Amino acid sequence: MTSGRHFLQIPGPTNVPERVLRAMDRPIPDHRGPEMPSLVAEIRAGLRSVFKSEQGEPVVFPGSGTGAWEASLVNTLSPGDRVLSFENGHFARLYAEAARQLGMQVDDVKLRWGDAVTQSDVEANLKPEHRAVLIVHNETSTGVTTDVGAVRRGIDRTGRDPLLLVDVVSSLGSMDFRMAEWRVDVALTGTQKGLMLPPGGAILCVGPRALEAAEKNRAPRYFYDWRPVIRDMQQGFFPYTPATLLLFGLREALRMLLEEGLDDVFARHRRLAQATREAVRAWGMSLLASDPARASNSLTAVVVEEIDSTAVVKVAAERLNLALGVGLGQLRGRVFRIGHLGSLNELEVLATLAGTELALLYSGQPIELGVGVAAAQRFFAGIKADAKLAAAETRGATPERVG
Amino acid sequence: MTSGRHFLQIPGPTNVPERVLRAMDRPIPDHRGPEMPSLVAEIRAGLRSVFKSEQGEPVVFPGSGTGAWEASLVNTLSPGDRVLSFENGHFARLYAEAARQLGMQVDDVKLRWGDAVTQSDVEANLKPEHRAVLIVHNETSTGVTTDVGAVRRGIDRTGRDPLLLVDVVSSLGSMDFRMAEWRVDVALTGTQKGLMLPPGGAILCVGPRALEAAEKNRAPRYFYDWRPVIRDMQQGFFPYTPATLLLFGLREALRMLLEEGLDDVFARHRRLAQATREAVRAWGMSLLASDPARASNSLTAVVVEEIDSTAVVKVAAERLNLALGVGLGQLRGRVFRIGHLGSLNELEVLATLAGTELALLYSGQPIELGVGVAAAQRFFAGIKADAKLAAAETRGATPERVG
Repeated sequence: MTSGRHFLQIPGPTNVPERVLRAMDRPIPDHRGPEMPSLVAEIRAGLRSVFKSEQGEPVVFPGSGTGAWEASLVNTLSPGDRVLSFENGHFARLYAEAARQLGMQVDDVKLRWGDAVTQSDVEANLKPEHRAVLIVHNETSTGVTTDVGAVRRGIDRTGRDPLLLVDVVSSLGSMDFRMAEWRVDVALTGTQKGLMLPPGGAILCVGPRALEAAEKNRAPRYFYDWRPVIRDMQQGFFPYTPATLLLFGLREALRMLLEEGLDDVFARHRRLAQATREAVRAWGMSLLASDPARASNSLTAVVVEEIDSTAVVKVAAERLNLALGVGLGQLRGRVFRIGHLGSLNELEVLATLAGTELALLYSGQPIELGVGVAAAQRFFAGIKADAKLAAAETRGATPERVG
Repeated sequence: MTSGRHFLQIPGPTNVPERVLRAMDRPIPDHRGPEMPSLVAEIRAGLRSVFKSEQGEPVVFPGSGTGAWEASLVNTLSPGDRVLSFENGHFARLYAEAARQLGMQVDDVKLRWGDAVTQSDVEANLKPEHRAVLIVHNETSTGVTTDVGAVRRGIDRTGRDPLLLVDVVSSLGSMDFRMAEWRVDVALTGTQKGLMLPPGGAILCVGPRALEAAEKNRAPRYFYDWRPVIRDMQQGFFPYTPATLLLFGLREALRMLLEEGLDDVFARHRRLAQATREAVRAWGMSLLASDPARASNSLTAVVVEEIDSTAVVKVAAERLNLALGVGLGQLRGRVFRIGHLGSLNELEVLATLAGTELALLYSGQPIELGVGVAAAQRFFAGIKADAKLAAAETRGATPERVG
């Protein structure tokens, strides 16, 4: 089945909108030429709006989320510095691992993969010697969102003042993130999630205390040294060749987010996510998220009990032109992930749910076809789900299996 | 809801695949330059394959299906000539009207809109003075396909030999059409349906008898005179400026159809159409097609009883980013049309059906959300629909209405 459109519903990269594709579909400009200053100025202003940080310095590197981790660490910390992290998923684990590889001493608090980091986790574990706290706002491997405001309150309650470094890779542009209000010192992401761009860029926003820490820091750093980048971006340029077409795409994507309105963008993601969770409930399956209130609005991780989740993802790709996310790390085979972030609407989510139902059926999971789609439709239409589900339960489940 | 992808599910124009968009996204060539001969030769060969006519002469005009009607008429017929047509829908009516405006005497047999033209219709109405028979292979306003082979048999049974002119606008490239086997003299289409291109082109294939008729014809014609076009296309050029980017797109679209394989393309359309019809049945609604065996594989026209079909189409566009087709002519307000032709896959059809259910609900039509999607899913999965429908009937219909 190669005809028609591909449904790229992994939790990023996301579908690049036509407007962004068209903005990038142009000749390569001279990156020291006259087009750059207004382009870079608009990007800096747009990123400050999306990060919600009037004072933060936006930084754009050719790179990826992984590169953004490195930038957040090498600028603010030195080998030997002690940092606190919370392992509540694959990406939190990898962020800590990056710090360890760069020579930091990492105190890594193990949580259940599926938990959010709580205020009390922070209060209980933060020590005077911790120079920084690493947090993943939205854990892409588990579909769980940590309340960064609560993390901030936890830090404040201890009376200590470590740097707060936050990975917003799968939240920025999809969920509310308030860098200034939560006094986040560094926030970091890639281009390919809520910002609706192709992969290839690492984007950070750097607050005043992190800027100051970077100035004082004597540790060696080179490519991801943000000082020359910030200095040149303030003039509308870059110290080395930037990924120029990504910049044109970024400007267009920021325009789209701000035209739709950030609050409406977040409401749309909440709505699409809630519909997806209604479908999972109708399937009789479980979210990986321990606390439904912390379930992510940019992706949903679904636990499979009887079958291998990797097989579900494989059959979706092979038979349905649908890309779902596999389980990562210790979750391999146990969960699959539905991405619902970026440029996305109701019909695309309904198609994804219909395809997921077929993929589950094709993988041997007993499922009544259409029940998840119907639950999502009812949610979209504002019809109370409970009455309907009760009726379904009354008439008894009638799961189907393929041949 | 402007985020995400638009679902263009009118019965054409259809979604232009990325490959075709990319093929057209190039500098304008000199239409008398060295790129043209191989481009035009490949297009001629590809069109002959798709029309299934080794001897037919493919003709490409800047234009539309309406222009192709004119080309089919002004080349083969003269004012005063008598032709036979069958009004079984809006486009059959307009094709006859074109002939009338061009001065022909049209004997227009009125059929129910929703009927196919049958062998006996032809036998009963064809008179010795008819110089041509006009047939619409797939009536885009009603979702009904006429068996052109049966039309040919009907003509042959009378022992007469009028020219057979066939509109394949919404069938070519989606359903089997056999120009040579059915001895069709002229077949005509636009670029924007099964050929998966933007609108802007009129395409014909002209058989030997029609070529001969055009040579003998003394009636005036100019833009749509196919003689200079055929002569120049045989050399790889055009007598006037062709829509060059459409030609690059056409080459790519023909490659895609032939790579997938025509039989597989037709099977895919049959499958997507059957799933759509299963959904309509599950909704408890009716096809406009009088005979289910003649229901079209490129679109489905659904009859609405209680509400205005135009409202369904309007709400789908406004609230769901979904374009469905309105009822045309005498069917205005009474049917809506779901297009399922061109570059399309199962998930796109499921999304369209889910969106149609919501649009019906939003328009005040009582409908149990998800039942049509589930019926289509079961069809795709090869699960017998009847058992399931019987179960649904047993548990009683529970239609929903919005607040």
